[in-house]
Amino acid sequence: MTKGLFITFEGPDGSGKTTQIHKVAEWFKNKGYEVVLTREPGGTKAAEAIRQIVLDPKFPIKAECETLLYLAARAEHVEKVIAPAVAQGKVVLCDRFSDSTFVYQGLTRGVDMDVLKTMNAFATKGLIPDKTILLDGDSKQLAVRRSTRGVEDRFEMEGLAFQEKVRHGFLTLAKLEPKRIVVLDAIRDQDTVAADIFKHLEPLL
Amino acid sequence: MTKGLFITFEGPDGSGKTTQIHKVAEWFKNKGYEVVLTREPGGTKAAEAIRQIVLDPKFPIKAECETLLYLAARAEHVEKVIAPAVAQGKVVLCDRFSDSTFVYQGLTRGVDMDVLKTMNAFATKGLIPDKTILLDGDSKQLAVRRSTRGVEDRFEMEGLAFQEKVRHGFLTLAKLEPKRIVVLDAIRDQDTVAADIFKHLEPLL
Repeated sequence: MTKGLFITFEGPDGSGKTTQIHKVAEWFKNKGYEVVLTREPGGTKAAEAIRQIVLDPKFPIKAECETLLYLAARAEHVEKVIAPAVAQGKVVLCDRFSDSTFVYQGLTRGVDMDVLKTMNAFATKGLIPDKTILLDGDSKQLAVRRSTRGVEDRFEMEGLAFQEKVRHGFLTLAKLEPKRIVVLDAIRDQDTVAADIFKHLEPLL
Repeated sequence: MTKGLFITFEGPDGSGKTTQIHKVAEWFKNKGYEVVLTREPGGTKAAEAIRQIVLDPKFPIKAECETLLYLAARAEHVEKVIAPAVAQGKVVLCDRFSDSTFVYQGLTRGVDMDVLKTMNAFATKGLIPDKTILLDGDSKQLAVRRSTRGVEDRFEMEGLAFQEKVRHGFLTLAKLEPKRIVVLDAIRDQDTVAADIFKHLEPLL
């Protein structure tokens, strides 16, 4: 049984991750692959319960607690969903993963990056995505997209300066790992973005 | 305003921590101190919500997730309850703290102790108790005490071999930090144990 693939989708809210991850799932399925579609924080019963705490504005938690909760959810997710599926040769497509923690908690909220990397390696047991699709776009344009949605969560309420920091954080990570992280312009029509993603995933097949 | 005191109570379930912590609270109050009585995991709204996840047998979480959840709850607890109260000169009495993590997740479940110390220091911002009361006793005798209680939580369901490891873990920590951690025989009548605790706390006043 050959090892599968672990592909993550990153980028600010409104960058089209959910839309694109579904298109990529269809693309892999049409090629005969078994696909597992999942998201962070979440993917297991305990992780979804943790998600309720971390994303609920009625719990005004600080950066340390927030970081540890994301990592707790990730530990379960890796152990029970991602690692077993990859070991069975499946394609795992995940909406957000470690890069989001490095960007939101590390580069944006200022949690020490060395400690963060140690803790993340503990949570993931060293698992790194085979490829990461970073959907990038102008923060103002993405804000307009988000405003068409319903309820905003805690992150989305933090405003444009925060989103600019987030964008810059993701682009910094992409510069440090250009082979793994592919930066794509998200401000295009959905099918054009999808075609661009397929082009970058083709060599992994 | 002088700095207060931070005193923790450790030991296996059934060792009488809850009973003794209330006696100690009364003792301090009678001497005119302002007392904050709290517990881990818990102490804040978010931490209590985390407690629900970590202690509920319907979420069969692994050691990594369990560890990170305890630390997440602790981060909130330290930042919002313990540190502010100590800074205001109050006496904070806490039912379980870092030593429980080192014993249950580290020495008992086998989480790497160096990684655990790094992560715990992140969660606590380096806060260490002024004094820790370790209530120690024969595992079988403590099991009998526990059997008189109602619903058992996940840890209590793990059996005698586990409780023996826990006891040994706490005694190991006490050997490494004999000035901070006071080991007391919990298998005595409550008032005798309490008198023993007061004797060890008197020098802190």
